[in-house]
Amino acid sequence: MEMKPQRVIADLCRQFYHQGWATGTGGGISVRENGRVYMAPSGVQKERIEEDDIFVLDEQGEVIEAPKTPGLKVSECSSLFYNAFRLRDAGAVLHSHSINAMLVTLLNKDVFECTQIEMMKGLSGHGYYDTVQVPIIDNTARECDLADRMADAMKAYPKSHAVLVRRHGVYIWGRDWVHAKTQAECYHYLFEAAVRMRQLGLDASAGESHVRALEADKGYAAAVASTGAGGKR
Amino acid sequence: MEMKPQRVIADLCRQFYHQGWATGTGGGISVRENGRVYMAPSGVQKERIEEDDIFVLDEQGEVIEAPKTPGLKVSECSSLFYNAFRLRDAGAVLHSHSINAMLVTLLNKDVFECTQIEMMKGLSGHGYYDTVQVPIIDNTARECDLADRMADAMKAYPKSHAVLVRRHGVYIWGRDWVHAKTQAECYHYLFEAAVRMRQLGLDASAGESHVRALEADKGYAAAVASTGAGGKR
Amino acid sequence: MEMKPQRVIADLCRQFYHQGWATGTGGGISVRENGRVYMAPSGVQKERIEEDDIFVLDEQGEVIEAPKTPGLKVSECSSLFYNAFRLRDAGAVLHSHSINAMLVTLLNKDVFECTQIEMMKGLSGHGYYDTVQVPIIDNTARECDLADRMADAMKAYPKSHAVLVRRHGVYIWGRDWVHAKTQAECYHYLFEAAVRMRQLGLDASAGESHVRALEADKGYAAAVASTGAGGKR
Amino acid sequence: MEMKPQRVIADLCRQFYHQGWATGTGGGISVRENGRVYMAPSGVQKERIEEDDIFVLDEQGEVIEAPKTPGLKVSECSSLFYNAFRLRDAGAVLHSHSINAMLVTLLNKDVFECTQIEMMKGLSGHGYYDTVQVPIIDNTARECDLADRMADAMKAYPKSHAVLVRRHGVYIWGRDWVHAKTQAECYHYLFEAAVRMRQLGLDASAGESHVRALEADKGYAAAVASTGAGGKR
Repeated sequence: MEMKPQRVIADLCRQFYHQGWATGTGGGISVRENGRVYMAPSGVQKERIEEDDIFVLDEQGEVIEAPKTPGLKVSECSSLFYNAFRLRDAGAVLHSHSINAMLVTLLNKDVFECTQIEMMKGLSGHGYYDTVQVPIIDNTARECDLADRMADAMKAYPKSHAVLVRRHGVYIWGRDWVHAKTQAECYHYLFEAAVRMRQLGLDASAGESHVRALEADKGYAAAVASTGAGGKR
Repeated sequence: MEMKPQRVIADLCRQFYHQGWATGTGGGISVRENGRVYMAPSGVQKERIEEDDIFVLDEQGEVIEAPKTPGLKVSECSSLFYNAFRLRDAGAVLHSHSINAMLVTLLNKDVFECTQIEMMKGLSGHGYYDTVQVPIIDNTARECDLADRMADAMKAYPKSHAVLVRRHGVYIWGRDWVHAKTQAECYHYLFEAAVRMRQLGLDASAGESHVRALEADKGYAAAVASTGAGGKR
Repeated sequence: MEMKPQRVIADLCRQFYHQGWATGTGGGISVRENGRVYMAPSGVQKERIEEDDIFVLDEQGEVIEAPKTPGLKVSECSSLFYNAFRLRDAGAVLHSHSINAMLVTLLNKDVFECTQIEMMKGLSGHGYYDTVQVPIIDNTARECDLADRMADAMKAYPKSHAVLVRRHGVYIWGRDWVHAKTQAECYHYLFEAAVRMRQLGLDASAGESHVRALEADKGYAAAVASTGAGGKR
Repeated sequence: MEMKPQRVIADLCRQFYHQGWATGTGGGISVRENGRVYMAPSGVQKERIEEDDIFVLDEQGEVIEAPKTPGLKVSECSSLFYNAFRLRDAGAVLHSHSINAMLVTLLNKDVFECTQIEMMKGLSGHGYYDTVQVPIIDNTARECDLADRMADAMKAYPKSHAVLVRRHGVYIWGRDWVHAKTQAECYHYLFEAAVRMRQLGLDASAGESHVRALEADKGYAAAVASTGAGGKR
């Protein structure tokens, strides 16, 4: 667990690439440790980042150590990552372009909601009968212009460890890289579950309510087979 | 094959993580050997477990050897794993959060059923023309509260090597880790097949019956093309 | 390329496992070389086969060298593999439980057909404007009972390098292991394409015919958006 | 980054194979460097190419160095790769048989279009509010006969770094292998997103327009739940 932040970032970027969270140079992760912020460069192949490619910044966002590899620029998400460091005292923030994260922003307007899915319990502060809410902010032409919207959404949804960006992806944070990564795995599971439930005519935000209505009925299968019967009503 | 149980658990947790059975710290496997029960810790990244992270318990469920790694807690699924050890004399039990396992609990009420899919023959005690039945129990706010429901379901379905938990996942066991793992692969294949058949308008529990009705007809393709014709009626 | 057949089988079984062709102990590959047939054991984890687990048989199907690992049984698919060795002089035959292969047997009655998909050109003896035909035989309770049906199907479809088995999977062969494997990749691509086209309302056996009918129309998108317009008519 | 072109090609072919871009001997990549063109052989397993299998050609397309491995033929895509070298001064061109790339050519007539998806910004010369356009050319029986159609499409769509081939796949290029590969990752993301949006009743080319029409309405979820309401109108 006691790896250098540079090593952690390089390893996780490689993993995120293979999970489809960070292809096409998008996505990545930033780690804060002992008053230093470690950040991957912008616009590079995330699965091939080396320790020597990582920027070190101070807590005000100034670069204090440039990578040994020449020609690199600091991530354009910098101000978004700092939202989580400042507003939530996060130890790590990641950004994912997962297609499922992008798709749930097309199926919901202001907030993604789901309830009564066990994986929710992996999210800090959430029980099985709660409703997970992840705010969705509209995208902008330039990534840096998202910072204020993201900060507003974080204040409006204090229980969320994530902010979705419409037609774009998601920012997720935690108290350290392990926490940020495991929160991210839970959120991505829920996004995928919601999309796949939709394809089966089910609504991830409906919970068991539609089931109880069906109990005197012929069971789930028949209900779902008729158009939309498994969905919210 | 003669690996230490600690090594087996660490390797399989890594594999299950990459198969989507154990992300977000969920899922895992427990092995029983020579009167000892080996169990992964709770709430940790399952793909990064080391041999020194594993608990050793006796057959009464008491921890007799804590992991060398400090700060770990024994799995919350402990009492569920012991159901399989006690009621079925299992040598290994695994827990999976696979999205397909979760989805089939939304498409069926009390029991998942399928028939006439070759992969069923990999399940002990099942032939091709049998019907595989996996009981579905409702989820609870706390995982430990599931134990009695799971035990009841195991008694009601003595041929099953698995119990599904609604909106949650599945517990699967076998006489040793190889048997538990291969049973799990067959069950997960059947869950995925059932979900994908549903998306094509087909019902995994219907078997060939709907086909024979169509034989004088224009064949499968035409039948399936008309709404729902390939499904159960 | 000049690997021992035992090494080839162990490596390919591992690869097929990770591609979803050989989970739950199902699937596998057999190689014939210099009058010897090399075959994986039955009912074992296919991703963990070692060279010492492989059987050597003569061309009449008699075991002439048992594996060094004790307790293994020769594959139950043996007589099916020999169909390809005898009727087509194959150098390798593989068996896959791929879910897409299984699903296409539910969407078609006696034969799987597709046309005008570039990947067809990877199949020996097929051009882009031909129709690929893979016969589908009904499954049996015991795998060995499939041999006669498979042989009949091979005679009825002499251009095919594959036979699908309903609700089960597929057998695919080639002149050597490289040829069998690349044929298998093309067939599996076509099976997946056909299933996914079906989910989009398209028919893999229809080719460009439905397109020409639409050319005076508003283009594909509008046509597909209306129910079933992209499918066969 | 300073790898030999032969090493780059072998590594990327292996990666593309595992991403489903280059199975069944299809697909591949060609690199141009210092007046030399490096190209993988035709009809071989792309995940097992070695440095000694690579052809070296001059800028006129003549082979100047045959691979050390005997019996290999130069890629049939040769003239298509040269289109990108000559018309766009590309440093690398890749060819992919990705099923998503193939599927979008069935859902669109002359051009694939999408707008307002963040991943577009990874494509050179495209902003978030632009429309990505990738021309689609019809396939031919022989791959070499595609060259003129591809050249015409490249001239008609000067902003595109890709040409789709109906029922076949896609050619994508960039100023060097890193640029070609990252462009390819963005395009493949957009193709997958478009197919999956279609399955949810949404249209990747519609952008936010359908959303604004819904704002006084009950939100996305209700709109999408009713047939096709989330799609283009």
